[in-house]
Amino acid sequence: MRDKIKAAKTIAFDMDQVITDTLDKQLMVINEHFGMELTKEQMYGKHLRDFLPTMEHIKEMYNLINSKGFFRDLRIIEPNTRDIMKEINSRYEVYICTAATEVPNSLEDKFLWLREELPFLKMDNFVFCGNKKVMHSDVLVDDSPLQLQRFTGIGVLYTSPFNVNDEEFFRVNNWSEIADLFL
Amino acid sequence: MRDKIKAAKTIAFDMDQVITDTLDKQLMVINEHFGMELTKEQMYGKHLRDFLPTMEHIKEMYNLINSKGFFRDLRIIEPNTRDIMKEINSRYEVYICTAATEVPNSLEDKFLWLREELPFLKMDNFVFCGNKKVMHSDVLVDDSPLQLQRFTGIGVLYTSPFNVNDEEFFRVNNWSEIADLFL
Repeated sequence: MRDKIKAAKTIAFDMDQVITDTLDKQLMVINEHFGMELTKEQMYGKHLRDFLPTMEHIKEMYNLINSKGFFRDLRIIEPNTRDIMKEINSRYEVYICTAATEVPNSLEDKFLWLREELPFLKMDNFVFCGNKKVMHSDVLVDDSPLQLQRFTGIGVLYTSPFNVNDEEFFRVNNWSEIADLFL
Repeated sequence: MRDKIKAAKTIAFDMDQVITDTLDKQLMVINEHFGMELTKEQMYGKHLRDFLPTMEHIKEMYNLINSKGFFRDLRIIEPNTRDIMKEINSRYEVYICTAATEVPNSLEDKFLWLREELPFLKMDNFVFCGNKKVMHSDVLVDDSPLQLQRFTGIGVLYTSPFNVNDEEFFRVNNWSEIADLFL
């Protein structure tokens, strides 16, 4: 599988929890709003919604995440992400493929974030979508097993707390492993 | 070719000049801004930029089109577009695939327009991109021969004034012809 992935010409990268540490900000905002003390360590094998007692809480969480600006100031996920992405971008055709239609207020934030933080990427190669079955690419690096199931190319699962138990896809745990795989 | 297109399961539709009459608003705004009297009839075989004397004018036009709200109040291209789209949507998997990354301020406008004007479409199937080679779909209906060349499925060219001389793709001239093709 490793060789097949390495032979790719086009690689699509998901944003949330692959390029940006979205969970970090989600926890901060949710803890503040609901007066909770959730940590990343508690998220192993779970989703945020598992910790919210009612549908009302889940709806409120959704509204918090869909507020304008939420996705504008996210931290890049690892200190080496930018440099490795730059190198990969010089050797492969890189796409950014991020689910944004369920959080429509994230569209502009995500676009501006990418232009500012990864200005070497071609904006012509950004894809803001919902279901990633629409993505035409050799490889997709994503933290969502569901999206990788829908995708028709080769899926690479980027480890996130919630997906640690998934065994269906080739897994990378961090950007050093992404570098090992593609460079 | 007609039978091959009809056998499609997934159809992606471009927005500008296929679903929305974007040129109509462009002409209105440009005429007002530059004190010109351009008409659709003059656009046959031409692009808007062919009528602007300097790069400065072209840049100004781009700024006008990229202003927030420009894409929010566009007219639907034909009176029967909504009904035909609804029927096609009940028989095929319909995607909306619109180039928005070069006009980033259009992202939110286009999303809101689609939700309001074609609320029966799945927002999970909206794709906001740049280069349409990223689109995985059996068919793409688009007015841009360039995008249809990049697309890897079957291209259907929707007639626009600027593309009237193109002979490379299967052509539809209006939504009645789209209905004849797919329904």
